[in-house]
Amino acid sequence: MSNPTAAMLVIGDEILSGRTRDANMHYLAGQLADQGINFCEVRVVRDDSDAIISAVKSLSTSYDNVFTSGGIGPTHDDITADCIATAFGVKINVRDDARELLAKHYADTGRELNEARLRMARIPDSAKLIDNPVSVAPGFTLGNVHVMAGVPSVFKAMVATVLPTLTGGAPLLSVTLRIELGEGDIAKPLGILASSFSNLSFGSYPFQQDGRHGSNVVIRGTDSMEINAAYSALEALFPT
Amino acid sequence: MSNPTAAMLVIGDEILSGRTRDANMHYLAGQLADQGINFCEVRVVRDDSDAIISAVKSLSTSYDNVFTSGGIGPTHDDITADCIATAFGVKINVRDDARELLAKHYADTGRELNEARLRMARIPDSAKLIDNPVSVAPGFTLGNVHVMAGVPSVFKAMVATVLPTLTGGAPLLSVTLRIELGEGDIAKPLGILASSFSNLSFGSYPFQQDGRHGSNVVIRGTDSMEINAAYSALEALFPT
Repeated sequence: MSNPTAAMLVIGDEILSGRTRDANMHYLAGQLADQGINFCEVRVVRDDSDAIISAVKSLSTSYDNVFTSGGIGPTHDDITADCIATAFGVKINVRDDARELLAKHYADTGRELNEARLRMARIPDSAKLIDNPVSVAPGFTLGNVHVMAGVPSVFKAMVATVLPTLTGGAPLLSVTLRIELGEGDIAKPLGILASSFSNLSFGSYPFQQDGRHGSNVVIRGTDSMEINAAYSALEALFPT
Repeated sequence: MSNPTAAMLVIGDEILSGRTRDANMHYLAGQLADQGINFCEVRVVRDDSDAIISAVKSLSTSYDNVFTSGGIGPTHDDITADCIATAFGVKINVRDDARELLAKHYADTGRELNEARLRMARIPDSAKLIDNPVSVAPGFTLGNVHVMAGVPSVFKAMVATVLPTLTGGAPLLSVTLRIELGEGDIAKPLGILASSFSNLSFGSYPFQQDGRHGSNVVIRGTDSMEINAAYSALEALFPT
């Protein structure tokens, strides 16, 4: 596929310790498919500077777009912004535009814009702010890296801001045929069919439900006519 | 922490396309915490040989244990076993011990052990089989890489087989204090407290519930006395 590519970096001890089940990866996957951006890789790393910097460098070199999630709050373990600045070799400090957003918000809500909260205005030089309609503290885009919050409601809102600004491609379409045969029974003809539609991807996923078992075959691609042709051929192979 | 380390490699277009929400990462995270194995990194890659081989090489060099999930079924997109063999530079073919397991199973259930199903007996030379009590087709361990199925029930069963054979450490313990103050209000004293307990990790996770907002502070470590001391100090800072 010649669609643009993307990767995600999830930053969070809370995921790797088993405390929290990540929700952002699945959400982003659906959004990228709709936008025609080819989601190629996810990494989840600890709240550790070296791990974050190394992953950002690797992913931002390999893919057109990188989305990060987590680690941009006010506490001591929120080190993402500084790591991104280091990865790109740019300076970072409290920036006036971000400080103004926070100052207005905390004034409106009668809370103090203290030193900890000001950390959320630390934005790398030349980065572009990403609007946060939920809790104000902004994300940012630096180079091809979009730095977003880990809180799912904020992550979603930031994705909604960023995605329309990116070059997309033809949306990734998919159709599924439920076949009441085991994967082992469909594998050979399915493999032959898949090799005759080289622009499409064919996935097979076993299911067991109500004492029945079988395979959900998913055909994915960007050309709806080709997908329809493949689906018809699949149905002809395995009449339901 | 001097506990052994682990990483996970999730292989699956179905995750990256948004079709399926991964469940295995969260399950493994909890199991590794109990076993005292330090879960450091997860990568999710497509059903693509180069991506799988490159990720396996990188993770197996960097961590004590690597767990893979997905891509060991009978269909054309199940390429994990061959990729692992390539990554370690060993040969792979249908192996007698795995073939016997499958032959017995399919004879018992009156189904044919056809060419596609025999693919599930492709096991790299010198690998040790991992029992699959759910659907028989085995996983395997090669070097420090444990290759397991993506179907959650099978993945869980294989983890249950593998984990007791690994060198663990002191289990990762955690306590959580719910504080009805925003992260920005607790960040400074929390950071000072965290720096005085350098063997523990302190995470802060904002919540909004029933119109209230606040922070769940999680203290993690392996020494229960130290965790208790830190928890008492935290409670004293933020009386509830």
